[in-house]
Amino acid sequence: MDLELTEEQRAFAQAARDYAQGELAPHAAHWDAEGIFPREAFARAGEMGFCAIYASEDIGGLGLPRLDATLVFEEMAAVDPSTTAFLTIHNMATWMVGKWGSDTVRQEWGEALASGRKLASYCLTEPNAGSDAASLVTRAERVGGDFVLNGAKAFISGGGDTDLLVVMARTGAAGPAGVSAFAVPADAAGISYGRKEEKMGWNSQSTRPISFENVRVPAGNLLGAEGEGFKIAMKGLDGGRINIGTCSVGAAQGALDAARRYMDERRQFNRKLSEFQALQFKLADMATHLVAARQMVRLAACKLDNGSADAGTYCAMAKRFATDMGFQICLDAQQIHGGYGYLRDYPLERLVRDTRVHQILEGTNEIMRVIVARQLLEKGADIR
Amino acid sequence: MDLELTEEQRAFAQAARDYAQGELAPHAAHWDAEGIFPREAFARAGEMGFCAIYASEDIGGLGLPRLDATLVFEEMAAVDPSTTAFLTIHNMATWMVGKWGSDTVRQEWGEALASGRKLASYCLTEPNAGSDAASLVTRAERVGGDFVLNGAKAFISGGGDTDLLVVMARTGAAGPAGVSAFAVPADAAGISYGRKEEKMGWNSQSTRPISFENVRVPAGNLLGAEGEGFKIAMKGLDGGRINIGTCSVGAAQGALDAARRYMDERRQFNRKLSEFQALQFKLADMATHLVAARQMVRLAACKLDNGSADAGTYCAMAKRFATDMGFQICLDAQQIHGGYGYLRDYPLERLVRDTRVHQILEGTNEIMRVIVARQLLEKGADIR
Amino acid sequence: MDLELTEEQRAFAQAARDYAQGELAPHAAHWDAEGIFPREAFARAGEMGFCAIYASEDIGGLGLPRLDATLVFEEMAAVDPSTTAFLTIHNMATWMVGKWGSDTVRQEWGEALASGRKLASYCLTEPNAGSDAASLVTRAERVGGDFVLNGAKAFISGGGDTDLLVVMARTGAAGPAGVSAFAVPADAAGISYGRKEEKMGWNSQSTRPISFENVRVPAGNLLGAEGEGFKIAMKGLDGGRINIGTCSVGAAQGALDAARRYMDERRQFNRKLSEFQALQFKLADMATHLVAARQMVRLAACKLDNGSADAGTYCAMAKRFATDMGFQICLDAQQIHGGYGYLRDYPLERLVRDTRVHQILEGTNEIMRVIVARQLLEKGADIR
Amino acid sequence: MDLELTEEQRAFAQAARDYAQGELAPHAAHWDAEGIFPREAFARAGEMGFCAIYASEDIGGLGLPRLDATLVFEEMAAVDPSTTAFLTIHNMATWMVGKWGSDTVRQEWGEALASGRKLASYCLTEPNAGSDAASLVTRAERVGGDFVLNGAKAFISGGGDTDLLVVMARTGAAGPAGVSAFAVPADAAGISYGRKEEKMGWNSQSTRPISFENVRVPAGNLLGAEGEGFKIAMKGLDGGRINIGTCSVGAAQGALDAARRYMDERRQFNRKLSEFQALQFKLADMATHLVAARQMVRLAACKLDNGSADAGTYCAMAKRFATDMGFQICLDAQQIHGGYGYLRDYPLERLVRDTRVHQILEGTNEIMRVIVARQLLEKGADIR
Repeated sequence: MDLELTEEQRAFAQAARDYAQGELAPHAAHWDAEGIFPREAFARAGEMGFCAIYASEDIGGLGLPRLDATLVFEEMAAVDPSTTAFLTIHNMATWMVGKWGSDTVRQEWGEALASGRKLASYCLTEPNAGSDAASLVTRAERVGGDFVLNGAKAFISGGGDTDLLVVMARTGAAGPAGVSAFAVPADAAGISYGRKEEKMGWNSQSTRPISFENVRVPAGNLLGAEGEGFKIAMKGLDGGRINIGTCSVGAAQGALDAARRYMDERRQFNRKLSEFQALQFKLADMATHLVAARQMVRLAACKLDNGSADAGTYCAMAKRFATDMGFQICLDAQQIHGGYGYLRDYPLERLVRDTRVHQILEGTNEIMRVIVARQLLEKGADIR
Repeated sequence: MDLELTEEQRAFAQAARDYAQGELAPHAAHWDAEGIFPREAFARAGEMGFCAIYASEDIGGLGLPRLDATLVFEEMAAVDPSTTAFLTIHNMATWMVGKWGSDTVRQEWGEALASGRKLASYCLTEPNAGSDAASLVTRAERVGGDFVLNGAKAFISGGGDTDLLVVMARTGAAGPAGVSAFAVPADAAGISYGRKEEKMGWNSQSTRPISFENVRVPAGNLLGAEGEGFKIAMKGLDGGRINIGTCSVGAAQGALDAARRYMDERRQFNRKLSEFQALQFKLADMATHLVAARQMVRLAACKLDNGSADAGTYCAMAKRFATDMGFQICLDAQQIHGGYGYLRDYPLERLVRDTRVHQILEGTNEIMRVIVARQLLEKGADIR
Repeated sequence: MDLELTEEQRAFAQAARDYAQGELAPHAAHWDAEGIFPREAFARAGEMGFCAIYASEDIGGLGLPRLDATLVFEEMAAVDPSTTAFLTIHNMATWMVGKWGSDTVRQEWGEALASGRKLASYCLTEPNAGSDAASLVTRAERVGGDFVLNGAKAFISGGGDTDLLVVMARTGAAGPAGVSAFAVPADAAGISYGRKEEKMGWNSQSTRPISFENVRVPAGNLLGAEGEGFKIAMKGLDGGRINIGTCSVGAAQGALDAARRYMDERRQFNRKLSEFQALQFKLADMATHLVAARQMVRLAACKLDNGSADAGTYCAMAKRFATDMGFQICLDAQQIHGGYGYLRDYPLERLVRDTRVHQILEGTNEIMRVIVARQLLEKGADIR
Repeated sequence: MDLELTEEQRAFAQAARDYAQGELAPHAAHWDAEGIFPREAFARAGEMGFCAIYASEDIGGLGLPRLDATLVFEEMAAVDPSTTAFLTIHNMATWMVGKWGSDTVRQEWGEALASGRKLASYCLTEPNAGSDAASLVTRAERVGGDFVLNGAKAFISGGGDTDLLVVMARTGAAGPAGVSAFAVPADAAGISYGRKEEKMGWNSQSTRPISFENVRVPAGNLLGAEGEGFKIAMKGLDGGRINIGTCSVGAAQGALDAARRYMDERRQFNRKLSEFQALQFKLADMATHLVAARQMVRLAACKLDNGSADAGTYCAMAKRFATDMGFQICLDAQQIHGGYGYLRDYPLERLVRDTRVHQILEGTNEIMRVIVARQLLEKGADIR
């Protein structure tokens, strides 16, 4: 048992930091202001292997543990949580293709996704099935060798700008067991994209509703077996929760670093801000909570990597904790910047807007509590 | 001692609510998105007396207590905190003109400001004098019958879109006693306006830095006596803190109402959100904290109205508490809306962005703590 | 509308402060350590009118508003929350006797209770009916001109040391409408008192379970009409919640005063504690939250005095808020005292232990949220 | 890097759990109520090796990492934080004797302490040197081959009931460099013990002030070299902070387990408490914060074991976080128990009283923030 990073891991994180400084930092504010989906930056990430960090090596992934993936995402999110968060979704979809795709799908899409030349969206949420994902009603009917999809998805990250959709649809009865997963080309006939959502943040990734009207996909595009879709979705979500938690940790680190620099430069009442004890204490608490959030994420990632039975519980705890702490740290860093923290000239207000949604998506933090409580009370989980 | 509103006060609040529903609610999102400074809406407010609620009647003000003003501002802020907050600043500047202006100034500007035909900005903050307002360096030199202003102000609400500037400038030595207040026409020669700031929120009011280069104003434009400027500024701030606290309370009420409606409409897991106990508890706490914040603001306003010696302390407490609670309530209401709370289609994310700055300006909430602590520890204030 | 105390009210509070300093302060620690129920101190309080502040004048009460009662209780609780809390219970029971007692009961008990010569306990809670008070099972059967009581009560403050019991018992069917209230002499045949509970605090008031075995009381000892008991109990609780909230506010004031004094005396690192900004900020927040809590209590009391329809909601909000804030302020004051705060030589640890239970009883703070949420969501209450 | 416990570690923790259940659980409430210092229980702990878990093997210690020690302390603290906390102090003192003691001291005391037959106290704090430990004034003057100690210590755990005192005293000039550490037999001539302190909790360990009047100790009783005392004390405190954090984590686990059981048994409103969503969410948050606290402690312990340069910073973060979270979890568990949580019949109120002091001692949590802030702001520490 060793809770410190290895040298190799530190080097991997450093590579990600260099990428983030070079490819994301100079553009993040602009992409946010203009709502630009930075396909080129994703392609560069692909060159580094960052589009398929834990996807299997046979489709070109790095095949690394989740824990290592958090190191990369954290460094990127320190400068651009929105762009990074999309990258984590793409990683998840790519991993799904690698793990559950048929040979055909893997050959057609695997390497393209792993390299970042093609990008993928994850389509689970529906307008009336947000937290209650298992109640989704998009249908996929078997017609000969195909499935025909009808229905609607909402809040799809990258929707309209990506190349492949991983779609959860109902092939059977109500409930989780009736759901299957499909790899659907984004330009398939019958797919239409709604208006780009106007959001508080996460502006470098487009979000659109998607309609499916008699969209035909070959049965070979099933991911996993028929009826396995919800299980796949949930496995995806476990990892997705680590990823989103990591994005909050990264953003918090970026915010903390900015606050520390500002405290060293800004003077009021003839003293540096860093000399005011109340601000010192705030900074100390920010750092402490950041480290705690990071450890929660790493522990959950480690459990997922180890295949531990209680990994799901820890992923839920990590997501809840890291996104709450991360957002608060961004707020605190913004507060330390005073009026300047409210201006777009500084990154703080963007970090606040971007991390706000982390508390909501990938299962709201309320749903995380439902998950943890159920394990504790119904399943008798022991968190020792 | 009676802590409940009178019937008359309720009617006054209702009039403000009607105004807010008719004139602000339909446009608030648009003004925010497009950065529109709604001069017409202010003029309509002027017709209701809302541009000069506590300004003296001789310049056309309503001459009402601060407490009554909070009723109006609270109702408006429930639908548009940004526009309301500017209106409170204009009220403050108008009150200053009415209270400390020479006859000339009062005649030239009083009625125009009270009616909302002309608008005023308040110019205290400087780039290097944020929290430490007393260290301001903008100078006003006496030259014959004029004062000549040189220097720069920052974060001026309405700057570039208003007609009159109430400017704090140094006419004497360093420290608070060397500061004087001036009414300066916004189009005076030598005034130049910087780039409109891009902000996280408060978008319906422009914010610009202002430079003064040899700006001549007649000595009759002094507000109060020479050297009284900082005292006037601080009196203004006491009221300003109540006002900004009120804007937070109002926004929180708007957010709470939205959350309550949404909980009654939205279903997940075959139940209304309003049936989930954890959300019920959240709503109960939001309501409780809202009432507490409102009471704090009203108590401080009452003390200001009564001329109580400890009014300043209570204004600081009210501002700190109401803006912190108000922001948190907006966040909670947004959270209850799930993903929809993150979209611009709903008012929640705007309320969050707008109220965020209330914790920062009119003295940061850290400065509020400095004020309260000083009273408690150095002055031996008794808060019984 | 005026939120400040009148001169008369201030004088009344001062009288209470003098009483508290003279009669409670010198003994509070001893009563706590030894578990002494200070009958004499209650008798002295009775001489001041403090045993029947809002009870009707015809039984010797002061007939004052609830709001004035809070002034007295707050001052006493600043030095001894446990003793004060019992006094508030006695006041409630005395008020019930005055308001709902038959002439016989009022003559027999009214003046004795009002003067503090006799003391009363309030018997609602049962071992299996804590938060769910309406499910109580103690029965009172009509037998001729008497009622015969059988059952058990739990957590009875003063139980075993008082003279009169106000007992809620079931005379009818299940549910609230089947409950009646009785004035029962504490030494009636068939009453037995259990072991004195060992508690974390509230040690100056004994707490015992009580058993009723064929206890006969004349029908004239009914308080109110048959079936009105739950209504009476709930009215009692509204006031009881204000009272317990007040005890928390008072304790918090006592703790704050102690912290302020200590910060002025204690030196570390060659400076007074009062010079450390982080402690200054803590003290400022304590004071702010204390004022907010006090205002919530006063608002609720005012609404109860005015007979406002929403008084119950505000009592619940006030109880929740004031007891949470009060406890936290006591903890903060204890923390400021460092290791000395953990010793019985200082009052802090006692204030912490005593106020802890305020969050639990008179309806737990969870039940307060249930009440508030129900009003907001089911009754459409408007808290404006 | 692996964040999960090994099988061996789980077995070691299980042994501690068995010990705690057998030797501590049946007596903890009694020891608390009567203020009994349980020497026999410590001797039994010694038989298991728990009196010298990380002390060197040459004096009979287990020589295990700090991380493994936390496993043991955590299990014990789940049933008795007070007794466990003393055991951690004894472990620290024993480790100091093993690491810095001369051969004479090691031979005379090493095995006796490691076996738990003899017990040791740690004497750093003085009446006027609490948080500011480096300002201590107890002097040790060299006189021939002896040192002669004069001065006074305060808040000494076990003081008056232990056999050896590890005393920090000034042998040189003011400041940290003038301090040396001594092993002083507790019955040496000139030592007198003050009144046993009456405390809020931690009652199974006596706390007394100690006076030294011309107490002679041979120079061979120096621990480390002359002038190394403060360095030794600080190293001790790093470990001590982990230990006290661990005690909070353990107590929190005990409280959480109790709350979970109670929620499954207790019914209100015809439902188990475990069916109320608001309580479910509270429990989920308790569990989440408990895991986060544990991870912080383990990370700090791991860094101390690895000799990482930033171990001290992480120990301070872990102590601050774990003791705050642990106390809050105990409060929450108590709240879930309603009125029963306030009674001594249940362990909750004891856990609350015992863990309260963890936020205060071994450096207050305010001092922890000073340490962390200094690293961040003055030393430019990178917490990545």
